[in-house]
Amino acid sequence: MVKKNKKKSCAILIIGNEILSGRTRDQNVSFLASWLNSNLGIKIEEVRIIPDIEKVIIKSVLELSKNFNYVLTTGGIGPTHDDITAKSISKAFKKKYSYNVEALKILKNYYGNQFNDPRKKMAKMPEDSKLIYNPSSAAPGFIINNVICLPGVPLILKSMVHNLKKYLRPGAKIFSFSINFQTVESKIATDLGKVQKKYKKFVEIGSYPFFRLGKIGVSVVIRSSKKGYLQSCHKDIIRIAKNKKIKIVKGD
Amino acid sequence: MVKKNKKKSCAILIIGNEILSGRTRDQNVSFLASWLNSNLGIKIEEVRIIPDIEKVIIKSVLELSKNFNYVLTTGGIGPTHDDITAKSISKAFKKKYSYNVEALKILKNYYGNQFNDPRKKMAKMPEDSKLIYNPSSAAPGFIINNVICLPGVPLILKSMVHNLKKYLRPGAKIFSFSINFQTVESKIATDLGKVQKKYKKFVEIGSYPFFRLGKIGVSVVIRSSKKGYLQSCHKDIIRIAKNKKIKIVKGD
Repeated sequence: MVKKNKKKSCAILIIGNEILSGRTRDQNVSFLASWLNSNLGIKIEEVRIIPDIEKVIIKSVLELSKNFNYVLTTGGIGPTHDDITAKSISKAFKKKYSYNVEALKILKNYYGNQFNDPRKKMAKMPEDSKLIYNPSSAAPGFIINNVICLPGVPLILKSMVHNLKKYLRPGAKIFSFSINFQTVESKIATDLGKVQKKYKKFVEIGSYPFFRLGKIGVSVVIRSSKKGYLQSCHKDIIRIAKNKKIKIVKGD
Repeated sequence: MVKKNKKKSCAILIIGNEILSGRTRDQNVSFLASWLNSNLGIKIEEVRIIPDIEKVIIKSVLELSKNFNYVLTTGGIGPTHDDITAKSISKAFKKKYSYNVEALKILKNYYGNQFNDPRKKMAKMPEDSKLIYNPSSAAPGFIINNVICLPGVPLILKSMVHNLKKYLRPGAKIFSFSINFQTVESKIATDLGKVQKKYKKFVEIGSYPFFRLGKIGVSVVIRSSKKGYLQSCHKDIIRIAKNKKIKIVKGD
């Protein structure tokens, strides 16, 4: 079903005018990024937010599905006129946009005699798709090639991710540490830069200033799939604090 | 300084591993989208979130700056090793990455005898850039061609947007209404689809289910730069509720 190369990279494609207009603040990126990493060792390498416009969806899906192992889309699979994800992805992959028999059965069973045309639309998807079951509100997501389509409503999306595990091949888990310095970035920047050079390919070091409860500080986040390098890098960073007499504080 | 065509479209490029890893949830997209529309009639048409990797930044900046009137970047203009936005954009536009004299002066004045090398780095940017002043923490953003670089820290970014107004040519303001129905999407989907067809090019209609305080409902959001069409579309949608005996409730 999905590409079988070693890289386990993933892109998220958020489809929805409501996010671009500023009306709704996305909540799915941070959840999916954390969930994919901790459960499957899959890293999000790009996110795009695009409008409900067919040609934009087609172009973005084709680009991202070529460049990444997996593409997760969110939004646009509901019953209304602005839900055009399934149709657009059918066109992108030159697949027939048709009723999935299993999805129809699930929805018919869920809605009973309230199973009207807009609800039937939620069973239409690219031919050959496999379903991602939805324990909250029945309407399934689907996977076609390496593109996985999920709803935009965070609560529903969260309830479904467990059911997409079987379609994803795990990569190497990324471990991370946060160290919070009671200082400003410029005081540790040169030393941190040196440590980053030392662990160049093995540890990713990020530096993020924070302002909390009237105090300023810097969170240094180190990330690696290699525990040994991570521990050694952690020691080097603690040493910077000791040498500069900078207090390390509790953080997030 | 900026492209002078009629379209007033804009993309946002968020540069930062911390957003992709799920550690930090972006707050700037919704703020910038609302601010740009209400103050300048500029519409966000795409957002990308990318890692702190030079070649990815270069590729994304070139693509977006070609396709949109403006590109706003956030993040990566601080003093640490992972702040590589200014250098990468210099390379993208084949501009020298050098000290901006005015920025150096501002920072020297702000930091006094604490003006060390990492802080000096914040005055380095593509040659010919113009500054976006920063009333919170001195380090300026900059504009080069049609690309505007802002910091990632939301509080600082918010304090700076007023100073980028002069570089942006206003477009037509988008007006919007929200109507909240006490129903489910599938009950109004067919009628809404018809209304969308009627106002095809002039009004954008979005339908968003909500779950609040134990109640379910649908927010219908209509958006247009033409007030007349918007009002007429609003009436048509209210009529759907009346015909179907659906209650309209107060919402966001």
